[in-house]
Amino acid sequence: MPNSETLNASVDLYRQILEDFIPFHQILGLKLVDVKPNLVIVTIPFKPELIGDPIKRAIHGGVLASVMDAAGGAAGLTTMKSFNDKLSTIDLRIDFLQPGKGEDIICEASIVRSGSRVIFTRMICYNVSKPTEIIAEGRGVYSVRRHSAV
Amino acid sequence: MPNSETLNASVDLYRQILEDFIPFHQILGLKLVDVKPNLVIVTIPFKPELIGDPIKRAIHGGVLASVMDAAGGAAGLTTMKSFNDKLSTIDLRIDFLQPGKGEDIICEASIVRSGSRVIFTRMICYNVSKPTEIIAEGRGVYSVRRHSAV
Amino acid sequence: MPNSETLNASVDLYRQILEDFIPFHQILGLKLVDVKPNLVIVTIPFKPELIGDPIKRAIHGGVLASVMDAAGGAAGLTTMKSFNDKLSTIDLRIDFLQPGKGEDIICEASIVRSGSRVIFTRMICYNVSKPTEIIAEGRGVYSVRRHSAV
Amino acid sequence: MPNSETLNASVDLYRQILEDFIPFHQILGLKLVDVKPNLVIVTIPFKPELIGDPIKRAIHGGVLASVMDAAGGAAGLTTMKSFNDKLSTIDLRIDFLQPGKGEDIICEASIVRSGSRVIFTRMICYNVSKPTEIIAEGRGVYSVRRHSAV
Repeated sequence: MPNSETLNASVDLYRQILEDFIPFHQILGLKLVDVKPNLVIVTIPFKPELIGDPIKRAIHGGVLASVMDAAGGAAGLTTMKSFNDKLSTIDLRIDFLQPGKGEDIICEASIVRSGSRVIFTRMICYNVSKPTEIIAEGRGVYSVRRHSAV
Repeated sequence: MPNSETLNASVDLYRQILEDFIPFHQILGLKLVDVKPNLVIVTIPFKPELIGDPIKRAIHGGVLASVMDAAGGAAGLTTMKSFNDKLSTIDLRIDFLQPGKGEDIICEASIVRSGSRVIFTRMICYNVSKPTEIIAEGRGVYSVRRHSAV
Repeated sequence: MPNSETLNASVDLYRQILEDFIPFHQILGLKLVDVKPNLVIVTIPFKPELIGDPIKRAIHGGVLASVMDAAGGAAGLTTMKSFNDKLSTIDLRIDFLQPGKGEDIICEASIVRSGSRVIFTRMICYNVSKPTEIIAEGRGVYSVRRHSAV
Repeated sequence: MPNSETLNASVDLYRQILEDFIPFHQILGLKLVDVKPNLVIVTIPFKPELIGDPIKRAIHGGVLASVMDAAGGAAGLTTMKSFNDKLSTIDLRIDFLQPGKGEDIICEASIVRSGSRVIFTRMICYNVSKPTEIIAEGRGVYSVRRHSAV
């Protein structure tokens, strides 16, 4: 059974949660790339069903919002000490800096501040072929109920 | 061929754009409910693949963000006079007020302010069985390039 | 000494808090107009020192942000049952819909959702001579630590 | 008369605009620290009138919002080529990460993306004695009307 250290770091555990446990992530095809304390990287491989603008072949803004919420929440999870802790999204904000091409998306989520009750995260999305060109940036704020670790 | 009046109001045209033209909306199962000048109402019928929290059976936050971006953009479209006008999302913000149940979602998007270059929209989501209990509220800001109608 | 009912409604108490207790409100000249459960209305009478754009004689965006944070926090206060409850701003978002004229500003803040740990508020600002023309809209999210009322 | 290069960089010009030209900045006591292309740093020296929470002696959230709007707008100005270009704030969002102490505030604003019509900026605020402890982060989105430089 996973303990608080695996909660803080285990790639396998996060893969299971993100890829298998959450139905909507399967529709998106979301895959975990890496997880470390305070950092989660995921990818959504391109498929035509994710397109929001068929003329530009750009990924739907809602796909970017979805992957940001997923990665931000998982980053929040890495700050937790117990499986009894609860996390829920308070709000999510996305700036669409430029259209995403029809290509795999990478999303990196990191912790900006992890408090006793509120976690602030920052997310960036970019196309896999151009890691320096951010296509969207996001902010997620999460409510956390922390319990003393046993 | 649609003219500026159909652009402003036609249910058939908006159905075609929202339901058939945009691939990601088909994955979501998004359906148009109604369209009027400055107002668009859409629904996402419940299906298990949209779940984000299997324990609470709550809809994924990314689904709510997606339907808000879709409805907000379509509301913006109703302010346009020409098919040459271009609309793109600048930013999107979602407040998650309470978990959405495993049930059809309705999203209403309306225009807060439609300027010559920027459109502000407001979106609310609720479960079809409880229209007075808002589960999420959003704001979308869109950049618009308006051309003189011919 | 004020009890939980005055905390919920007393105009005098809120006037004291908003107008006398908070130094920055005195610089702004902020005045309470009305307070009811879940609703606070304040005003900032125009003075030239509040101008942010001398050419348009428009109020500074920071003045609008300040009055929104003040009114939103006070609206949050009306949901509290005890003076031991603590409120702090998590985040604040302002949409600037149109420039405010050189004129008194009214700001109305209302509760969107008041949960056990998080309060969502909505704020609107308008010039006193044109109540139907919103110049800025805002959202404030507040963290609240509620204690059992004695 | 200033040309497009001074618009892009001159400390004196930005000092004049930020410190002398905008009345509300004089109330705040806002001072320019540095300006470079895509980056503006300003400070607000502490004074008791800026306090928002007399018990914690914390700076008012509206002061932080004001300095962010000021610095973000000035950063946007550094992307302009002509004094005929116009800049206006579309929206502003602030995350309050921790209370600011009763101490001078530094605000750094940088350009996230500068497009032909929309500029995205990022702002951070910290107390002068602890530059690594961000007390608030912000996002400003600005509408810009660019003219060809003569």
